[in-house]
Amino acid sequence: MTTQSNLLLTIAYDGTPFLGWQETQEGPSIEGELKKALKILLKEDVEINGASRTDAGVHALGQIANFHTERKPDFFKFLKSINGLLPIEIRVTSIEEVDLQFHATLNNRGKRYLYRLSYGPAQYPHLRRTEWHTPGPLNIEAMKKAATLLEGTHDFKAFCNTKKNETYASTVRTLDRIEIKEQDQQTLEIVIEGNQFLYKMVRNLIGTLVYIGRGKISLEELVTLLESKDRTEAGPTAPAHGLTLFRVFREIVNQKDDSQSDHHKNR
Amino acid sequence: MTTQSNLLLTIAYDGTPFLGWQETQEGPSIEGELKKALKILLKEDVEINGASRTDAGVHALGQIANFHTERKPDFFKFLKSINGLLPIEIRVTSIEEVDLQFHATLNNRGKRYLYRLSYGPAQYPHLRRTEWHTPGPLNIEAMKKAATLLEGTHDFKAFCNTKKNETYASTVRTLDRIEIKEQDQQTLEIVIEGNQFLYKMVRNLIGTLVYIGRGKISLEELVTLLESKDRTEAGPTAPAHGLTLFRVFREIVNQKDDSQSDHHKNR
Repeated sequence: MTTQSNLLLTIAYDGTPFLGWQETQEGPSIEGELKKALKILLKEDVEINGASRTDAGVHALGQIANFHTERKPDFFKFLKSINGLLPIEIRVTSIEEVDLQFHATLNNRGKRYLYRLSYGPAQYPHLRRTEWHTPGPLNIEAMKKAATLLEGTHDFKAFCNTKKNETYASTVRTLDRIEIKEQDQQTLEIVIEGNQFLYKMVRNLIGTLVYIGRGKISLEELVTLLESKDRTEAGPTAPAHGLTLFRVFREIVNQKDDSQSDHHKNR
Repeated sequence: MTTQSNLLLTIAYDGTPFLGWQETQEGPSIEGELKKALKILLKEDVEINGASRTDAGVHALGQIANFHTERKPDFFKFLKSINGLLPIEIRVTSIEEVDLQFHATLNNRGKRYLYRLSYGPAQYPHLRRTEWHTPGPLNIEAMKKAATLLEGTHDFKAFCNTKKNETYASTVRTLDRIEIKEQDQQTLEIVIEGNQFLYKMVRNLIGTLVYIGRGKISLEELVTLLESKDRTEAGPTAPAHGLTLFRVFREIVNQKDDSQSDHHKNR
């Protein structure tokens, strides 16, 4: 048996034309495009493990994914070649070798998402693919207070959409950070960090924060809503195109170190 | 005769699909699209004076343009209506009434342009329409020194392309600012400010700065090049899509104040 190497890619993509990260027969996906390009380069079928299964239309600046291969390509040439094969909307920004045990889906301590929205009368045209334009005044102070209430460990069932063939043993999750940053020109950047998210949870949190900004949900109602665990009480799902997977925080995995060996449980 | 009002628009556009600001029979232009939309709204033909005649493919965040009209629309409704009529790549971000004498082409103290380029192996896909990707190492310190040499008043003939039907009485211009800002991820933002620019001067300055960064032109050669006034000695014209008209600095014009009356000379 030849020696295997475990290679980790960092990937940026404009999610607009894709059905999401995950490979599907229904149309183009980021995972599918990467597998096609890797097959041409490495002349073998590889399994890719992505850190985040981003939905259709969601973008990424710092997605990570690993795969095992029996070939170890020259990294500089590899980057040029794979980007030449990929559609212009997907770019591999770095490649590195990682410990054989490292699994991008399992061995990440969390993800940072960034949601961008503007609420002025007109949107800057060059941002229309990566920012939700939702015109009308927002009570930003109320939104910031709501963010503080949402941070921490809660049962986020009211913010979880139903997905075919997927049930959660628990809908309790921990949000490490929700920060609402005011940019110039009536734009908000909302940073959301956590270890694990429920289906459409980030976009449901954003939709609810905007409802709070518009006075459609009060801070008192937000507390009740969390307790109710009722999806119909929360705000709508914010559009996919405002959301970007900004960064994945990796765990350090070292197969020689037994103290790290139970990291796989952390899914 | 009815009372005229002089209205000033601030305009943002993604220049990708246009042949530039200036109206032309050859295809879509920003000025042409604005005139079409204004004719529908105001039911009259208007002349528009834009501050900067941006080239084909160049973007804007803060272009300004004024026009005279006999109607004074409700500004809130006007913004909604005109943006509903314009192509998605053009947005009027504000409208205000200005002094009858104000002329956006003549009464501006200067313009701030922003040129964005990345030089890493791969470009972030969502920036591909507004950033020049020119991979390969750059000597940024040399570029910063060159910027200092270019600031101030010089004969910029070596940075001026020939344009049909346009000759300059003088090619002496003053650059108030060239600042090279290092962003993360192998990206530079180059801010260029000045009162008046020659044809393609900003993009020729950028092309030359990149040549300096690549060691193709030395700082000593840059000094000789300025003195030579020879366009063929300078660097190439950088691509249009990296350039954005960021802001126009307006002059205060007040028809009641005689001390301001010679501003029209400043063209």
